[in-house]
Amino acid sequence: MPNTRAPDGNAIRTQRTRERILAESLRLFNARGEPNVTTGQVASALRMSPGNLYYHFRNKDQIVEHLFEAFEARIGVDPGEAFDGPAAMEDLWLYLHLMLEAIWDYRFLYRNLDDLLARNRRLRTGFNRMIDAKTGTVAALCEALVRSRSMRASPEEIRALARNVLVVSTYWLNFQALRGVRDDVSPRDLGLGAYQVMALVSPYLVGEARAHLDRLSRDYLE
Amino acid sequence: MPNTRAPDGNAIRTQRTRERILAESLRLFNARGEPNVTTGQVASALRMSPGNLYYHFRNKDQIVEHLFEAFEARIGVDPGEAFDGPAAMEDLWLYLHLMLEAIWDYRFLYRNLDDLLARNRRLRTGFNRMIDAKTGTVAALCEALVRSRSMRASPEEIRALARNVLVVSTYWLNFQALRGVRDDVSPRDLGLGAYQVMALVSPYLVGEARAHLDRLSRDYLE
Repeated sequence: MPNTRAPDGNAIRTQRTRERILAESLRLFNARGEPNVTTGQVASALRMSPGNLYYHFRNKDQIVEHLFEAFEARIGVDPGEAFDGPAAMEDLWLYLHLMLEAIWDYRFLYRNLDDLLARNRRLRTGFNRMIDAKTGTVAALCEALVRSRSMRASPEEIRALARNVLVVSTYWLNFQALRGVRDDVSPRDLGLGAYQVMALVSPYLVGEARAHLDRLSRDYLE
Repeated sequence: MPNTRAPDGNAIRTQRTRERILAESLRLFNARGEPNVTTGQVASALRMSPGNLYYHFRNKDQIVEHLFEAFEARIGVDPGEAFDGPAAMEDLWLYLHLMLEAIWDYRFLYRNLDDLLARNRRLRTGFNRMIDAKTGTVAALCEALVRSRSMRASPEEIRALARNVLVVSTYWLNFQALRGVRDDVSPRDLGLGAYQVMALVSPYLVGEARAHLDRLSRDYLE
Protein backbone atom coordinates (compact mmCIF):
# COMPACT_ATOMS: atom_id res chain seq x y z
CA MET A 1 0.00 0.00 0.00
CA PRO A 2 1.65 3.26 -1.09
CA ASN A 3 2.21 5.64 1.75
CA THR A 4 2.05 9.32 0.89
CA ARG A 5 2.25 10.62 4.45
CA ALA A 6 5.18 9.04 6.30
CA PRO A 7 8.62 8.96 4.68
CA ASP A 8 9.44 5.63 3.07
CA GLY A 9 12.03 3.90 5.23
CA ASN A 10 13.36 1.83 2.34
CA ALA A 11 13.78 4.82 0.05
CA ILE A 12 15.69 6.66 2.76
CA ARG A 13 17.97 3.68 3.40
CA THR A 14 18.61 3.31 -0.33
CA GLN A 15 19.44 6.99 -0.63
CA ARG A 16 21.82 6.82 2.34
CA THR A 17 23.58 3.76 0.97
CA ARG A 18 24.07 5.48 -2.38
CA GLU A 19 25.52 8.50 -0.65
CA ARG A 20 27.90 6.36 1.41
CA ILE A 21 29.10 4.61 -1.74
CA LEU A 22 29.67 7.94 -3.50
CA ALA A 23 31.50 9.45 -0.53
CA GLU A 24 33.78 6.44 -0.09
CA SER A 25 34.47 6.24 -3.83
CA LEU A 26 35.44 9.91 -3.88
CA ARG A 27 37.76 9.40 -0.92
CA LEU A 28 39.47 6.38 -2.49
CA PHE A 29 39.65 7.89 -5.99
CA ASN A 30 41.30 11.03 -4.62
CA ALA A 31 43.71 9.06 -2.43
CA ARG A 32 44.82 6.38 -4.91
CA GLY A 33 43.77 7.62 -8.34
CA GLU A 34 40.57 6.43 -10.00
CA PRO A 35 42.26 3.84 -12.27
CA ASN A 36 43.71 2.10 -9.19
CA VAL A 37 40.40 1.63 -7.38
CA THR A 38 37.88 -1.12 -8.16
CA THR A 39 34.21 -1.17 -7.15
CA GLY A 40 35.11 -4.27 -5.13
CA GLN A 41 37.53 -2.21 -3.06
CA VAL A 42 34.87 0.44 -2.47
CA ALA A 43 32.42 -2.23 -1.30
CA SER A 44 35.02 -3.80 0.94
CA ALA A 45 35.96 -0.44 2.52
CA LEU A 46 32.26 -0.03 3.37
CA ARG A 47 31.94 -3.66 4.61
CA MET A 48 29.31 -4.14 1.95
CA SER A 49 28.93 -7.08 -0.45
CA PRO A 50 29.88 -6.36 -4.10
CA GLY A 51 26.36 -7.46 -4.99
CA ASN A 52 24.85 -4.80 -2.78
CA LEU A 53 27.02 -2.12 -4.36
CA TYR A 54 26.16 -3.42 -7.82
CA TYR A 55 22.46 -3.05 -6.92
CA HIS A 56 23.05 0.71 -6.57
CA PHE A 57 25.64 1.33 -9.31
CA ARG A 58 26.12 -0.94 -12.28
CA ASN A 59 29.78 -0.04 -12.77
CA LYS A 60 32.53 2.37 -11.83
CA ASP A 61 31.75 4.75 -14.68
CA GLN A 62 28.28 5.26 -13.25
CA ILE A 63 29.83 6.21 -9.90
CA VAL A 64 32.21 8.60 -11.65
CA GLU A 65 29.29 10.20 -13.52
CA HIS A 66 27.35 10.76 -10.31
CA LEU A 67 30.41 12.28 -8.64
CA PHE A 68 30.87 14.55 -11.62
CA GLU A 69 27.26 15.73 -11.36
CA ALA A 70 27.74 16.58 -7.68
CA PHE A 71 30.93 18.45 -8.59
CA GLU A 72 29.23 20.35 -11.40
CA ALA A 73 26.28 21.30 -9.18
CA ARG A 74 28.63 22.58 -6.52
CA ILE A 75 30.45 25.08 -8.70
CA GLY A 76 27.43 25.94 -10.80
CA VAL A 77 26.82 28.96 -8.59
CA ASP A 78 25.09 31.72 -10.45
CA PRO A 79 27.10 34.93 -10.30
CA GLY A 80 24.08 36.75 -11.72
CA GLU A 81 24.05 38.82 -8.55
CA ALA A 82 27.48 40.23 -9.39
CA PHE A 83 27.56 43.71 -7.97
CA ASP A 84 29.24 46.61 -9.58
CA GLY A 85 31.38 48.77 -7.35
CA PRO A 86 34.02 47.62 -4.87
CA ALA A 87 32.20 44.32 -4.27
CA ALA A 88 32.92 43.20 -7.86
CA MET A 89 36.55 42.36 -7.08
CA GLU A 90 35.60 40.29 -4.03
CA ASP A 91 32.97 38.50 -6.14
CA LEU A 92 35.62 37.44 -8.63
CA TRP A 93 38.09 36.46 -5.94
CA LEU A 94 35.45 34.41 -4.10
CA TYR A 95 34.33 32.68 -7.27
CA LEU A 96 37.87 31.67 -8.24
CA HIS A 97 38.57 30.54 -4.71
CA LEU A 98 35.45 28.32 -4.57
CA MET A 99 36.18 26.96 -8.03
CA LEU A 100 39.68 25.88 -7.03
CA GLU A 101 38.45 24.42 -3.75
CA ALA A 102 35.87 22.31 -5.60
CA ILE A 103 38.56 21.14 -8.03
CA TRP A 104 40.64 20.10 -5.04
CA ASP A 105 37.76 18.16 -3.47
CA TYR A 106 37.19 16.29 -6.75
CA ARG A 107 40.82 16.20 -7.79
CA PHE A 108 40.68 12.59 -9.07
CA LEU A 109 38.77 13.95 -12.09
CA TYR A 110 41.61 16.31 -12.94
CA ARG A 111 44.51 14.01 -12.22
CA ASN A 112 43.29 11.55 -14.82
CA LEU A 113 41.31 13.79 -17.12
CA ASP A 114 42.40 12.64 -20.56
CA ASP A 115 41.74 8.97 -19.87
CA LEU A 116 38.43 9.57 -18.11
CA LEU A 117 37.05 11.73 -20.89
CA ALA A 118 38.41 9.51 -23.65
CA ARG A 119 36.53 6.51 -22.34
CA ASN A 120 33.30 8.28 -21.32
CA ARG A 121 31.59 10.42 -23.94
CA ARG A 122 28.88 11.59 -21.55
CA LEU A 123 31.47 12.83 -19.06
CA ARG A 124 33.30 14.62 -21.84
CA THR A 125 30.17 16.49 -22.87
CA GLY A 126 29.45 17.38 -19.24
CA PHE A 127 33.00 18.55 -18.65
CA ASN A 128 32.91 20.82 -21.68
CA ARG A 129 29.54 22.24 -20.67
CA MET A 130 31.06 23.02 -17.27
CA ILE A 131 34.12 24.71 -18.80
CA ASP A 132 31.81 26.82 -20.98
CA ALA A 133 29.80 27.85 -17.92
CA LYS A 134 32.90 28.72 -15.89
CA THR A 135 34.44 30.70 -18.75
CA GLY A 136 31.19 32.64 -19.06
CA THR A 137 31.07 33.34 -15.33
CA VAL A 138 34.67 34.54 -15.16
CA ALA A 139 34.06 36.80 -18.17
CA ALA A 140 30.85 38.20 -16.63
CA LEU A 141 32.65 38.96 -13.37
CA CYS A 142 35.43 40.71 -15.29
CA GLU A 143 32.87 42.77 -17.21
CA ALA A 144 31.38 43.89 -13.88
CA LEU A 145 34.88 44.96 -12.82
CA VAL A 146 35.30 46.95 -16.03
CA ARG A 147 31.94 48.69 -15.47
CA SER A 148 32.98 49.65 -11.96
CA ARG A 149 36.30 50.92 -13.33
CA SER A 150 38.33 48.45 -11.27
CA MET A 151 39.57 46.69 -14.40
CA ARG A 152 40.89 47.90 -17.71
CA ALA A 153 40.43 45.26 -20.42
CA SER A 154 38.91 45.00 -23.88
CA PRO A 155 36.24 42.34 -24.60
CA GLU A 156 38.91 40.44 -26.55
CA GLU A 157 41.31 40.57 -23.58
CA ILE A 158 38.57 39.36 -21.22
CA ARG A 159 37.90 36.37 -23.48
CA ALA A 160 41.58 35.41 -23.56
CA LEU A 161 41.89 35.98 -19.81
CA ALA A 162 38.86 33.79 -18.99
CA ARG A 163 40.30 31.03 -21.20
CA ASN A 164 43.67 31.22 -19.46
CA VAL A 165 41.96 31.07 -16.06
CA LEU A 166 40.34 27.82 -17.19
CA VAL A 167 43.56 26.34 -18.59
CA VAL A 168 45.60 27.12 -15.48
CA SER A 169 42.92 25.95 -13.03
CA THR A 170 42.23 22.78 -15.02
CA TYR A 171 45.85 21.69 -15.29
CA TRP A 172 47.48 23.20 -12.23
CA LEU A 173 47.38 20.00 -10.16
CA ASN A 174 48.90 18.03 -13.03
CA PHE A 175 51.63 20.62 -13.42
CA GLN A 176 52.43 20.45 -9.71
CA ALA A 177 52.46 16.65 -9.73
CA LEU A 178 54.88 16.79 -12.66
CA ARG A 179 57.09 19.30 -10.88
CA GLY A 180 57.01 17.67 -7.48
CA VAL A 181 59.33 15.07 -6.12
CA ARG A 182 56.22 13.34 -4.83
CA ASP A 183 53.91 11.70 -7.30
CA ASP A 184 50.90 13.30 -5.75
CA VAL A 185 49.70 16.74 -4.80
CA SER A 186 49.12 18.34 -1.40
CA PRO A 187 46.74 21.04 -0.12
CA ARG A 188 49.64 23.47 -0.42
CA ASP A 189 49.51 22.99 -4.20
CA LEU A 190 45.93 24.26 -4.08
CA GLY A 191 47.05 27.52 -2.48
CA LEU A 192 49.80 27.97 -5.07
CA GLY A 193 47.22 27.32 -7.78
CA ALA A 194 44.97 30.04 -6.40
CA TYR A 195 47.96 32.39 -6.36
CA GLN A 196 48.75 31.58 -10.01
CA VAL A 197 45.14 32.09 -11.10
CA MET A 198 44.88 35.44 -9.29
CA ALA A 199 48.14 36.44 -11.01
CA LEU A 200 46.34 36.09 -14.35
CA VAL A 201 43.71 38.63 -13.31
CA SER A 202 45.83 41.07 -11.31
CA PRO A 203 47.58 42.96 -14.14
CA TYR A 204 44.22 43.99 -15.61
CA LEU A 205 43.07 45.53 -12.33
CA VAL A 206 43.75 49.17 -11.51
CA GLY A 207 44.34 51.14 -8.34
CA GLU A 208 42.94 49.87 -5.07
CA ALA A 209 41.36 46.77 -6.65
CA ARG A 210 44.77 45.56 -7.76
CA ALA A 211 46.41 46.25 -4.42
CA HIS A 212 43.52 44.46 -2.71
CA LEU A 213 43.75 41.35 -4.90
CA ASP A 214 47.51 41.24 -4.46
CA ARG A 215 47.05 41.26 -0.68
CA LEU A 216 44.47 38.47 -0.86
CA SER A 217 46.73 36.49 -3.21
CA ARG A 218 49.77 36.74 -1.03
CA ASP A 219 47.88 34.98 1.75
CA TYR A 220 47.83 31.86 -0.40
CA LEU A 221 51.59 31.65 -0.28
CA GLU A 222 51.67 31.35 3.51
CA MET B 1 92.70 -1.58 -39.24
CA PRO B 2 91.34 1.66 -37.75
CA ASN B 3 91.03 4.39 -40.31
CA THR B 4 91.51 7.90 -39.02
CA ARG B 5 91.45 9.65 -42.39
CA ALA B 6 88.44 8.65 -44.47
CA PRO B 7 84.97 8.70 -42.91
CA ASP B 8 83.86 5.29 -41.72
CA GLY B 9 81.13 4.06 -44.07
CA ASN B 10 79.63 1.75 -41.46
CA ALA B 11 79.43 4.43 -38.81
CA ILE B 12 77.71 6.77 -41.27
CA ARG B 13 75.21 4.11 -42.27
CA THR B 14 74.49 3.33 -38.62
CA GLN B 15 73.98 6.99 -37.86
CA ARG B 16 71.62 7.41 -40.81
CA THR B 17 69.60 4.35 -39.85
CA ARG B 18 69.23 5.66 -36.30
CA GLU B 19 68.05 9.00 -37.64
CA ARG B 20 65.52 7.35 -39.96
CA ILE B 21 64.15 5.32 -37.04
CA LEU B 22 63.85 8.43 -34.88
CA ALA B 23 62.18 10.47 -37.63
CA GLU B 24 59.66 7.73 -38.44
CA SER B 25 58.92 7.14 -34.75
CA LEU B 26 58.27 10.84 -34.24
CA ARG B 27 55.95 10.90 -37.23
CA LEU B 28 53.97 7.87 -36.04
CA PHE B 29 53.89 8.94 -32.38
CA ASN B 30 52.52 12.35 -33.33
CA ALA B 31 49.96 10.90 -35.73
CA ARG B 32 48.63 8.04 -33.61
CA GLY B 33 49.75 8.73 -30.06
CA GLU B 34 52.81 7.07 -28.58
CA PRO B 35 50.89 4.37 -26.64
CA ASN B 36 49.33 3.16 -29.91
CA VAL B 37 52.60 2.64 -31.79
CA THR B 38 54.87 -0.39 -31.36
CA THR B 39 58.52 -0.64 -32.38
CA GLY B 40 57.37 -3.38 -34.78
CA GLN B 41 55.16 -0.85 -36.57
CA VAL B 42 58.05 1.61 -36.82
CA ALA B 43 60.26 -1.10 -38.32
CA SER B 44 57.55 -2.15 -40.74
CA ALA B 45 56.92 1.44 -41.88
CA LEU B 46 60.66 1.64 -42.68
CA ARG B 47 60.67 -1.82 -44.36
CA MET B 48 63.22 -2.85 -41.79
CA SER B 49 63.33 -6.06 -39.79
CA PRO B 50 62.40 -5.74 -36.08
CA GLY B 51 65.82 -7.25 -35.32
CA ASN B 52 67.57 -4.48 -37.21
CA LEU B 53 65.61 -1.82 -35.29
CA TYR B 54 66.35 -3.62 -32.04
CA TYR B 55 70.06 -3.48 -32.88
CA HIS B 56 69.80 0.33 -32.77
CA PHE B 57 67.25 0.83 -29.96
CA ARG B 58 66.57 -1.76 -27.29
CA ASN B 59 62.97 -0.60 -26.70
CA LYS B 60 60.45 2.13 -27.32
CA ASP B 61 61.42 4.07 -24.20
CA GLN B 62 64.93 4.44 -25.56
CA ILE B 63 63.50 5.94 -28.74
CA VAL B 64 61.33 8.29 -26.70
CA GLU B 65 64.34 9.38 -24.65
CA HIS B 66 66.36 10.16 -27.78
CA LEU B 67 63.47 12.13 -29.24
CA PHE B 68 63.16 14.06 -25.99
CA GLU B 69 66.87 14.93 -26.13
CA ALA B 70 66.48 16.29 -29.65
CA PHE B 71 63.46 18.30 -28.51
CA GLU B 72 65.31 19.67 -25.49
CA ALA B 73 68.33 20.63 -27.57
CA ARG B 74 66.13 22.44 -30.06
CA ILE B 75 64.52 24.79 -27.57
CA GLY B 76 67.57 25.10 -25.37
CA VAL B 77 68.48 28.32 -27.17
CA ASP B 78 70.44 30.64 -24.96
CA PRO B 79 68.73 34.02 -24.71
CA GLY B 80 71.85 35.34 -23.02
CA GLU B 81 72.12 37.80 -25.89
CA ALA B 82 68.81 39.41 -24.89
CA PHE B 83 69.05 43.02 -25.89
CA ASP B 84 67.60 45.84 -23.93
CA GLY B 85 65.65 48.43 -25.87
CA PRO B 86 62.95 47.85 -28.46
CA ALA B 87 64.47 44.51 -29.52
CA ALA B 88 63.62 43.02 -26.09
CA MET B 89 59.95 42.59 -26.97
CA GLU B 90 60.74 40.86 -30.24
CA ASP B 91 63.18 38.60 -28.39
CA LEU B 92 60.44 37.45 -26.04
CA TRP B 93 57.92 37.04 -28.83
CA LEU B 94 60.36 35.02 -30.92
CA TYR B 95 61.33 32.81 -28.02
CA LEU B 96 57.71 32.00 -27.15
CA HIS B 97 56.93 31.38 -30.79
CA LEU B 98 59.84 28.96 -31.22
CA MET B 99 58.99 27.23 -27.97
CA LEU B 100 55.41 26.57 -29.08
CA GLU B 101 56.54 25.46 -32.52
CA ALA B 102 58.90 22.91 -30.97
CA ILE B 103 56.09 21.67 -28.69
CA TRP B 104 53.96 21.20 -31.79
CA ASP B 105 56.68 19.24 -33.59
CA TYR B 106 57.05 16.93 -30.58
CA ARG B 107 53.43 17.02 -29.52
CA PHE B 108 53.24 13.30 -28.71
CA LEU B 109 55.25 14.09 -25.56
CA TYR B 110 52.62 16.56 -24.42
CA ARG B 111 49.51 14.64 -25.41
CA ASN B 112 50.53 11.78 -23.14
CA LEU B 113 52.67 13.53 -20.60
CA ASP B 114 51.47 12.04 -17.32
CA ASP B 115 51.81 8.45 -18.45
CA LEU B 116 55.16 8.96 -20.15
CA LEU B 117 56.71 10.64 -17.12
CA ALA B 118 55.14 8.21 -14.65
CA ARG B 119 56.77 5.25 -16.35
CA ASN B 120 60.13 6.85 -17.16
CA ARG B 121 62.02 8.47 -14.30
CA ARG B 122 64.84 9.69 -16.52
CA LEU B 123 62.39 11.45 -18.82
CA ARG B 124 60.69 13.04 -15.84
CA THR B 125 63.97 14.49 -14.59
CA GLY B 126 64.78 15.77 -18.07
CA PHE B 127 61.37 17.30 -18.50
CA ASN B 128 61.62 19.16 -15.21
CA ARG B 129 65.11 20.38 -16.06
CA MET B 130 63.69 21.72 -19.32
CA ILE B 131 60.77 23.47 -17.58
CA ASP B 132 63.24 25.08 -15.15
CA ALA B 133 65.35 26.30 -18.07
CA LYS B 134 62.38 27.70 -19.96
CA THR B 135 60.97 29.42 -16.87
CA GLY B 136 64.37 31.02 -16.32
CA THR B 137 64.58 32.16 -19.93
CA VAL B 138 61.10 33.70 -19.93
CA ALA B 139 61.88 35.49 -16.66
CA ALA B 140 65.21 36.79 -18.03
CA LEU B 141 63.51 38.10 -21.17
CA CYS B 142 60.87 39.85 -19.02
CA GLU B 143 63.59 41.41 -16.88
CA ALA B 144 65.20 42.80 -20.03
CA LEU B 145 61.82 44.31 -20.93
CA VAL B 146 61.54 45.91 -17.50
CA ARG B 147 65.04 47.39 -17.86
CA SER B 148 64.10 48.87 -21.21
CA ARG B 149 60.88 50.26 -19.67
CA SER B 150 58.68 48.26 -22.03
CA MET B 151 57.26 46.22 -19.15
CA ARG B 152 56.04 47.11 -15.69
CA ALA B 153 56.24 44.11 -13.34
CA SER B 154 57.73 43.30 -9.95
CA PRO B 155 60.15 40.35 -9.59
CA GLU B 156 57.31 38.46 -7.88
CA GLU B 157 54.95 39.17 -10.80
CA ILE B 158 57.59 38.03 -13.29
CA ARG B 159 57.99 34.74 -11.44
CA ALA B 160 54.23 34.09 -11.46
CA LEU B 161 54.00 35.15 -15.12
CA ALA B 162 56.82 32.83 -16.21
CA ARG B 163 55.16 29.96 -14.36
CA ASN B 164 51.81 30.64 -16.05
CA VAL B 165 53.53 30.77 -19.45
CA LEU B 166 54.85 27.29 -18.76
CA VAL B 167 51.51 25.92 -17.53
CA VAL B 168 49.57 27.26 -20.52
CA SER B 169 52.13 26.19 -23.10
CA THR B 170 52.55 22.73 -21.54
CA TYR B 171 48.84 21.93 -21.39
CA TRP B 172 47.37 23.95 -24.23
CA LEU B 173 47.19 21.06 -26.68
CA ASN B 174 45.49 18.87 -24.07
CA PHE B 175 43.00 21.61 -23.35
CA GLN B 176 42.22 21.98 -27.04
CA ALA B 177 41.84 18.23 -27.49
CA LEU B 178 39.45 18.21 -24.56
CA ARG B 179 37.47 21.12 -26.00
CA GLY B 180 37.42 19.92 -29.57
CA VAL B 181 34.90 17.71 -31.24
CA ARG B 182 37.85 15.91 -32.75
CA ASP B 183 40.02 13.78 -30.51
CA ASP B 184 43.15 15.28 -31.87
CA VAL B 185 44.63 18.70 -32.39
CA SER B 186 45.37 20.65 -35.57
CA PRO B 187 47.97 23.28 -36.51
CA ARG B 188 45.30 25.90 -35.88
CA ASP B 189 45.37 24.93 -32.20
CA LEU B 190 49.05 25.90 -32.17
CA GLY B 191 48.21 29.42 -33.35
CA LEU B 192 45.51 29.77 -30.70
CA GLY B 193 48.00 28.57 -28.11
CA ALA B 194 50.49 31.23 -29.16
CA TYR B 195 47.72 33.82 -28.87
CA GLN B 196 46.84 32.64 -25.35
CA VAL B 197 50.48 32.69 -24.23
CA MET B 198 51.04 36.20 -25.61
CA ALA B 199 47.85 37.27 -23.75
CA LEU B 200 49.61 36.34 -20.50
CA VAL B 201 52.46 38.74 -21.22
CA SER B 202 50.58 41.58 -22.88
CA PRO B 203 48.97 43.27 -19.81
CA TYR B 204 52.40 43.79 -18.26
CA LEU B 205 53.69 45.63 -21.32
CA VAL B 206 53.35 49.38 -21.67
CA GLY B 207 52.92 51.79 -24.57
CA GLU B 208 54.24 50.83 -27.97
CA ALA B 209 55.54 47.43 -26.80
CA ARG B 210 52.02 46.38 -25.83
CA ALA B 211 50.47 47.62 -29.06
CA HIS B 212 53.21 45.83 -31.00
CA LEU B 213 52.71 42.50 -29.21
CA ASP B 214 48.95 42.76 -29.63
CA ARG B 215 49.43 43.23 -33.38
CA LEU B 216 51.75 40.21 -33.57
CA SER B 217 49.32 38.15 -31.47
CA ARG B 218 46.31 38.93 -33.59
CA ASP B 219 48.08 37.39 -36.58
CA TYR B 220 47.82 34.01 -34.85
CA LEU B 221 44.07 34.14 -34.98
CA GLU B 222 43.98 34.34 -38.76
